[in-house]
Amino acid sequence: MKIGIDLGGTNIAAGIVDGDKKMIAKSACKTKPERGAEAVIADMAELTRVLCQTNEIPYSDITEIGVGCPGTVDHTHKNVVFASNIGWKDVQVAGALENSTGKRVLCHNDATCAAIGELTSSPGYSSLFFITIGTGVGGGYIKDGRVFSGARSSALEIGHLLRRADGGPCGCGRRGCLETYASFTGLIRRAAAYVLDNPGSPLSRIRLKGKEIFELAKTGDPAALSLVGDLIENISHTVIDIANLFDPEIIVIGGGISKEGDYVLKPVIGNLHQFAYSRNGVLPEVRMAVLGNDAGIIGAAELGEYI
Amino acid sequence: MKIGIDLGGTNIAAGIVDGDKKMIAKSACKTKPERGAEAVIADMAELTRVLCQTNEIPYSDITEIGVGCPGTVDHTHKNVVFASNIGWKDVQVAGALENSTGKRVLCHNDATCAAIGELTSSPGYSSLFFITIGTGVGGGYIKDGRVFSGARSSALEIGHLLRRADGGPCGCGRRGCLETYASFTGLIRRAAAYVLDNPGSPLSRIRLKGKEIFELAKTGDPAALSLVGDLIENISHTVIDIANLFDPEIIVIGGGISKEGDYVLKPVIGNLHQFAYSRNGVLPEVRMAVLGNDAGIIGAAELGEYI
Repeated sequence: MKIGIDLGGTNIAAGIVDGDKKMIAKSACKTKPERGAEAVIADMAELTRVLCQTNEIPYSDITEIGVGCPGTVDHTHKNVVFASNIGWKDVQVAGALENSTGKRVLCHNDATCAAIGELTSSPGYSSLFFITIGTGVGGGYIKDGRVFSGARSSALEIGHLLRRADGGPCGCGRRGCLETYASFTGLIRRAAAYVLDNPGSPLSRIRLKGKEIFELAKTGDPAALSLVGDLIENISHTVIDIANLFDPEIIVIGGGISKEGDYVLKPVIGNLHQFAYSRNGVLPEVRMAVLGNDAGIIGAAELGEYI
Repeated sequence: MKIGIDLGGTNIAAGIVDGDKKMIAKSACKTKPERGAEAVIADMAELTRVLCQTNEIPYSDITEIGVGCPGTVDHTHKNVVFASNIGWKDVQVAGALENSTGKRVLCHNDATCAAIGELTSSPGYSSLFFITIGTGVGGGYIKDGRVFSGARSSALEIGHLLRRADGGPCGCGRRGCLETYASFTGLIRRAAAYVLDNPGSPLSRIRLKGKEIFELAKTGDPAALSLVGDLIENISHTVIDIANLFDPEIIVIGGGISKEGDYVLKPVIGNLHQFAYSRNGVLPEVRMAVLGNDAGIIGAAELGEYI
């Protein structure tokens, strides 16, 4: 059995994964990253022990631990190069965990781990592109059963693909990055701008969150429909670009947007089939993620099979 | 020794490549694609024989033949799925050549072959992204010493990455594709529009070709400078997107634009270092192609080493 850990800005989630790549137990604790990396890593090690104790599984049955980390992760040197949301810079997370647990520990980017997790729920496929759309936009890619990693741990920054050269500033220093359009953050920013100009509109009477804006759109409110339509168009273009560049067997959309199901998925698939470049008549399947937050835990546990 | 063939819309070029991956002899004939695939393939086989005879190399010394083809190539099934410039659709080019030459024959996309060729001139590197910028925009990628191919032969269509959702129509059916901005075709189209509005301008007195527009820009003509500056900015964004998505060790720019050398390369590298997302302080090297048209021939000959 293996343990997967999903290290997030708010929670550390961990699970025990069996030989069938199914999660048989999970647990979580708060990350509290302000304590520094050492304390967070100590809690990760402790969480793996508590998880085994609680579920009456001998710790010696755990053969391997995998960690999905936010930010830029150098899996070869088992190093978190940079993760802004937890304030880490050059943290040797896997080495430290190896020392405190005595297990082999692997690490990779959290979106890569989610891609592996979703691949375990995609029988018959070996190439899966996972795109997460929530506050930001991230990507993970498993190609021919192997994790796709760049030469310098900087690949798959799909959120920082150019969408409009004259667009608004992005946190990365460039203007008009895809993330400023195809995310809930972009949706909410544009909704807030609309409300400023139209203070009496129905949008001004709801909480400006992704879910609430989608709900208002589904009642037929024209402004909300237009905003949500823009987001869906931007997600469509993202999926088309992934098909045109990476040509995976399947594209899985995760993150907060996956809760919108067919309302988003159907137009995205329609646009893909209308506008993808492919000249051979077949296109990637597209589906919403099915494992939710478990994908990252299962994928982390299985990292060793895919690196 | 191996033979590489570069199948183009105008010429079929072939060369003999030795064990050091150097071309020791080459020859060419006209493609005349209007004759149909069978006649073209017969000429390819004949060209390999003539090449050996002329250079007094026994045909039996040739162990393998590789073909770089335009369009969408399914290398697994050795099939040209679709190549609009020679009118091919589902042509089993490698199988036909195997029958007529008795050699093992491999095929892949011409940009992939050029990537392999340039990699043979990049000692110490194993991951190279080749982008060709000329009439159109194409891409080839060798990752960790292996050809990057999509699941359905539709990867690396870098020219059909979205650049502006409200841009002009592209031949692929989408609007605002990168190819309509970051190519000589785009440059010439915008120059022609400028001349229509400004019939007395210096641009109206030159042939509207890429080379001539660059030459006029270098004399300081403001309109030509602006057009060329736009093109360089679009090429820069293309290179940044490649770095952010594929993170290769090195990006090589080929096609007609490579003749402009440092005039294009320097600002492109400057923009990459200013705007790439990378959080680990190192970025891909970028250089212009050095092998010219030979890259595709050498790379085709060496396909077997990289597939």
